[in-house]
Amino acid sequence: MPVLPPAVTALSRALMVLPSVGERSATRMAHFLLAEGRSAAEALSRAIEGAMSKVHLCKRCQFFAEDELCALCQDDIRERTILCVVEKPLDVVAIERSREYHGLYHVLHGIWSPVKGRGHDCLGIERLSERIDSEGIDEVILALGMTVEGDATCLYLAQALSSQGVKVTRLAQGMPKGGELEFTDERTLSRAFSGRSSV
Amino acid sequence: MPVLPPAVTALSRALMVLPSVGERSATRMAHFLLAEGRSAAEALSRAIEGAMSKVHLCKRCQFFAEDELCALCQDDIRERTILCVVEKPLDVVAIERSREYHGLYHVLHGIWSPVKGRGHDCLGIERLSERIDSEGIDEVILALGMTVEGDATCLYLAQALSSQGVKVTRLAQGMPKGGELEFTDERTLSRAFSGRSSV
Repeated sequence: MPVLPPAVTALSRALMVLPSVGERSATRMAHFLLAEGRSAAEALSRAIEGAMSKVHLCKRCQFFAEDELCALCQDDIRERTILCVVEKPLDVVAIERSREYHGLYHVLHGIWSPVKGRGHDCLGIERLSERIDSEGIDEVILALGMTVEGDATCLYLAQALSSQGVKVTRLAQGMPKGGELEFTDERTLSRAFSGRSSV
Repeated sequence: MPVLPPAVTALSRALMVLPSVGERSATRMAHFLLAEGRSAAEALSRAIEGAMSKVHLCKRCQFFAEDELCALCQDDIRERTILCVVEKPLDVVAIERSREYHGLYHVLHGIWSPVKGRGHDCLGIERLSERIDSEGIDEVILALGMTVEGDATCLYLAQALSSQGVKVTRLAQGMPKGGELEFTDERTLSRAFSGRSSV
C-alpha cells in the first residue's frame, strides 16, 4: 500500500515534466506546496491558467503575445527592414538583454534536427519567405546556436532564401562552440551581433 | 516597455516560489510550459488544484491524507505502541523507504528554531502528549535532524514528556553508510566512537 495519497503522487508526477526537475525535486516541490505553500500553490495554478488563456503566439513573428501582435512587433521605434531569426522565444529575451539589436524577430519554434526527427518542414520557411517579401526585409540575421543543428539550419535557410535577394548573415563566432543561445551572457551576445558575417 | 507579456512574467514569478527554483529556472519553466508543454501545463494546473482540494493533514498524525486518517494510521499491521516524531511529511517518506520502522508517526510540521522565529509553541506538544496518553504509547522515537535546531527540539521534547512515563529515544548518530573515515567530520567521528557497539 503506498504511503502517500494518490493526489500527492499525481502532483509530483505533474511537476516532473518541468525542465531540470527530477523525481526528488518534484517530490520536494509537491510537499512544499502542500505543507507550507498552499497560497503559493493556488497562485501558481491561477498563473498557469492565466498564461495559457491569455498568451499565444504573435501573428507576425511568433513570439509570445497577449494581443494579436507582440510588444516588439507593435513597437514603432524598431527597425523594420531587418529580421532576426531565432529558435525559440527564450532566445528573443536573451538578445533583448544584450541591447545590441533593434530590428524585428522571427521565431522558428524549432530547429533542423534529424536526431530528434525534425526535418526542414518544421522551420516554416514559406512563412519566413513570405514575411521577407511582404515586409521588404533587407537583411536576415540567423541567430541560431553554434551547434551542429544550428549550422545545418543556417546553411539550409541561407540556401532557401538565396533567390529572394535578401542579405543573409549569421552571428559571429564570438559565441563559444557548442553553446546554446539562451545561456550566453550579454557581452558575448553583443560581440556576436556586431561581428556578424555573410553566410 | 517590457518584451514579455505580463502573463508570462506572472507565471515565472509564481514558479519562483518553488524550492530551489531561481529566476533563470523559473523563466525556462514558464517558456517550456507556454511553447512546448501546453498540455503538461494544463495537467499541472489540474494536479495542483486536485492536491489542494483532496489532500489535508491526517487527523491523528498530521501526515498527508485524503481520508480522515492517512494510509499509515489506517494500516492495521503497524505497531501501535511506538511513535516516531518527525519534522515534516517528507521525513516520513524517507523513513518508510528504509523499511526499518513499523510503528506510527507524529509529524510536528516545524522545529524549534529561534533564528526563524519559531518557538516551543510551534511544536504542538499538547497534541503529542494527548496522543501518548490516549493511544497508550510505550516509546517515542525522536527522528529529527542532527542540527542545532534538532538537538534543541529533542531536549525540549524529552523534558516535556518526562512526566508521562514514556520511553523517549533519539536516532543513533554515527558514520553514514558508505562514508569514508578520512572525510568524516570530527563531531560525527566523536559520536561514532562514543556510540560504538560490539561486532
